[in-house]
Amino acid sequence: MKNIVILGASGSIGLQTLDVISRHPDKFRCVGLSVKSRIEAVAHVLRLHSGLLICVEKAEDALRLSSEFPQHQFVWGEDGLIQLACHVEADTVVNALVGFIGCKPTLAAIEAKKNIALANKETLVSAGKIVMETVRRNNVSLMPIDSEHSAIAQCLSAHDKNIRRLILTASGGSFRDKTRSELDSVSLADALNHPNWSMGAKITIDSATMMNKGLEVIEAHWLFQMPYDQIEVIMHRQSIVHSMVEFEDRAIIAQLGTPDMRIPIQYALSYPQRLPIELESLDLVKAHHLTFESVDFKRFPLLRCAYLAGKREDNSAAALNGANEAAVAAFLANEIRFIDIDTFVSEAFDSMIYHELNTLEDAIAADKMGRDWIKNKISGGNV
Amino acid sequence: MKNIVILGASGSIGLQTLDVISRHPDKFRCVGLSVKSRIEAVAHVLRLHSGLLICVEKAEDALRLSSEFPQHQFVWGEDGLIQLACHVEADTVVNALVGFIGCKPTLAAIEAKKNIALANKETLVSAGKIVMETVRRNNVSLMPIDSEHSAIAQCLSAHDKNIRRLILTASGGSFRDKTRSELDSVSLADALNHPNWSMGAKITIDSATMMNKGLEVIEAHWLFQMPYDQIEVIMHRQSIVHSMVEFEDRAIIAQLGTPDMRIPIQYALSYPQRLPIELESLDLVKAHHLTFESVDFKRFPLLRCAYLAGKREDNSAAALNGANEAAVAAFLANEIRFIDIDTFVSEAFDSMIYHELNTLEDAIAADKMGRDWIKNKISGGNV
Repeated sequence: MKNIVILGASGSIGLQTLDVISRHPDKFRCVGLSVKSRIEAVAHVLRLHSGLLICVEKAEDALRLSSEFPQHQFVWGEDGLIQLACHVEADTVVNALVGFIGCKPTLAAIEAKKNIALANKETLVSAGKIVMETVRRNNVSLMPIDSEHSAIAQCLSAHDKNIRRLILTASGGSFRDKTRSELDSVSLADALNHPNWSMGAKITIDSATMMNKGLEVIEAHWLFQMPYDQIEVIMHRQSIVHSMVEFEDRAIIAQLGTPDMRIPIQYALSYPQRLPIELESLDLVKAHHLTFESVDFKRFPLLRCAYLAGKREDNSAAALNGANEAAVAAFLANEIRFIDIDTFVSEAFDSMIYHELNTLEDAIAADKMGRDWIKNKISGGNV
Repeated sequence: MKNIVILGASGSIGLQTLDVISRHPDKFRCVGLSVKSRIEAVAHVLRLHSGLLICVEKAEDALRLSSEFPQHQFVWGEDGLIQLACHVEADTVVNALVGFIGCKPTLAAIEAKKNIALANKETLVSAGKIVMETVRRNNVSLMPIDSEHSAIAQCLSAHDKNIRRLILTASGGSFRDKTRSELDSVSLADALNHPNWSMGAKITIDSATMMNKGLEVIEAHWLFQMPYDQIEVIMHRQSIVHSMVEFEDRAIIAQLGTPDMRIPIQYALSYPQRLPIELESLDLVKAHHLTFESVDFKRFPLLRCAYLAGKREDNSAAALNGANEAAVAAFLANEIRFIDIDTFVSEAFDSMIYHELNTLEDAIAADKMGRDWIKNKISGGNV
C-alpha cells in the first residue's frame, strides 16, 4: 500500500490522480490533499474517507470545513502546504500545483524523504539544479508525470545507458496552423481549445505558445541529465507518440498511447511496476497515420528563449518562467492579447540582467524579476 | 572480447554480421564461420585472419581450400556444421542459416552452452518447444536477430512484466498493393524487389506471401512466451516502427529505426550493452509520416495458416514450414508461379494429418511430410 498526498487535487492532474487512486484501493491510499478554492471538486473524496489532512488557501475556509467535515484535519496557506507535503504517513507526494509556487513544497517533501511524482514542471525549470541536488542528497525518487517525460522514463531501461538524443514530441497546440500575424485576432476561448489534450488553462496556453515545450526541454535536461544539444523537439500533431529516446546504435525507443494523463500518472505511482487500467487500447489502424514535422523556432519564439535560458545555466530560466507565468495570468484575466504573451516574454528575456543561481532564494528573486518586468510592461511603467 | 561463430556467413545476415564484427575489433572476434558454396563472399575475411574454423558444404571444397588457406582449419557437411556450432572458443553462435536446416546446429550449440543470436526463424517455428526447453536447461541466452523480435526485446526492460499484447509490424512485401488475381502474372524478379529491406531470396519471397510474418508470429510466441491471441500483426508500409509491446496500462513501447539489419545484429551481439554504429540517425521529419493498416487475412492466407498451426501446438507448424520451404524453393527454381506458393501451401496445410511434437525427430518427420506434399503436388503425384 502506497500512501499518497496530492498537492493541487482539484486541478486536471489532481482529479485524474484521485481517479487512478480510487481504481486501485489495494495499492494506493490518499492520505492528504490540497485545494485552492474549488473544494466542491473534491467533496466526494472528503465524504467517502476520513482522517485526511487537507490544506486550503484561507484560514476561514479551514475553520468552516472543520465543522462540515469533522472526520478530517484542515490546515491552510503556504505553511499548511509545507505541512501537507511532509505528512508523516505519506510515501509519495504528487505535485500537481501550477507554477513556481510548487517549488517550496517539493523541496520540503524531498527533505522529508518523500518520493515525488512531479507534474509541476515550473519547479524544475526554475530551480532544477537545487531540486536535483536535494533529490540525490535525500536518496528519494522523482518520477515525472508530464506525458513526454514519463514516455522517456518508460523508454529507458536499466541497461540502456548510451543515449544519443531525447526527442520530445509537440502537438503544436491550439494555433499550430496559424501564422504569427493571424494570432492578432484569436480569443481566450480559441486558445483554450487544445486539439488533443484536455488540460488546465495555464498548460493549454503554454502549449499554444510552445513555452510548454520549452519548459519541458529544461525539465528533460534536469530529469535525464542530458545536454541541451541532445534534446530535440519535433512536431507530431496526433499526440500519440509521447516522446522518444535515440541510443548510440541509432535504435529509437518510443512510448505511444492515447492522450490520457491517467497513464503517466499511474506509471509515476506504480513504478517500477505497471498496473492494469480501464482504458481502450490505442487503435493504430484507426489512428492510421502519424506525422512528424520540424518546429519553426521563429513561429514559436519562446521555445528558442527556453533553449537559450537552459544553456545559460544561470537564473535566466527562473526569470523567463516567472515572466511567462505573469503574462499567461494576464492573458487569462483578459488584460493582454494572446500575441502579447510571447512578444512581452521574449522582450523580457532579452532585457533582463542575469546572475548565478545557487539557492532557492536566487530562484525566488529571479522569478520575481520576471513577473515584475511583465507587470510593469502591462501597466505601462518603465522596465 | 566475445568470440563469435557465424553459421551462414555468406548470406545477407552473415555478411552484415561480419561487417558489425569488423567495426568493433575490441569487442568481437570471429572464430569460425560456415559457407555453402559462395566462398568468394568471405574470402576477404579468410585472407585477413588466421586460425578460423571454416565449414563448407563439400569435402572436395574443404580439401582445395586447405591448401589455398593453410592458416585456417576446414570441415564440411552437416557434421562439420555441428562441430563449428560447438567450437570450443566460441561464446556466441550467430545462426544465419536459411530454413529448418538450421535447427540441429542450433540445438548442438545450446547443448555446448553457447549463447545464440538467432536469425534462423524456421528453427523456432518448427521446433520452438524443444529449442526453448534446451535453452532453459542449459541456461544460455537466445537473442533474436529478426528486426521485429529484436524490437520487442528492446522494448521489454527488466521491470516490465505486465504485457498485454505484442504488435508485429509488416511491410506487406513486394506485392502488398496487388490483389490476389493480379498475382497471376508476377515474375520472380518482381517478387524479389522488396520495397524497404534488402534481404536474402527466401525471406523476400516469404515477405511477399506474408508467410514471413506468420513465421514471426510463431517465433514471437516462443521467444516471449506469449499466447497467440496476444500477438497481433499490423501493416506498416514504411518499415520504420519495427514492432511494439502494449502493457497492461495501455502504454505502448515501440522500437524505431532505419531498416538496416546491422542494428538488430549488433544488439544481439552487444546485449545488454549498446554500441555506437556508423549509420545516419533516423530522420522522422524526412520520413514525415508513418501509416498503420489492418492486415487482410484472405489476401494473405499463409498468415492465417501460421496462426492456426501455432495455436494447435502440435507438429503442424513444422509441417507448414517444410511445405513453405519446398514451395519457395520451387518458385525460386522457376518450377511454379508465385501464386502457387500460398495456394499449394494452404492446400497442404488443410490436407495433412498432424500429431504431437515432442522430439527433434518429430519435427524432422513433420518437415519432411510438408516438403513431400509439395513435391508430390508439383510432380502431379497423388497427395
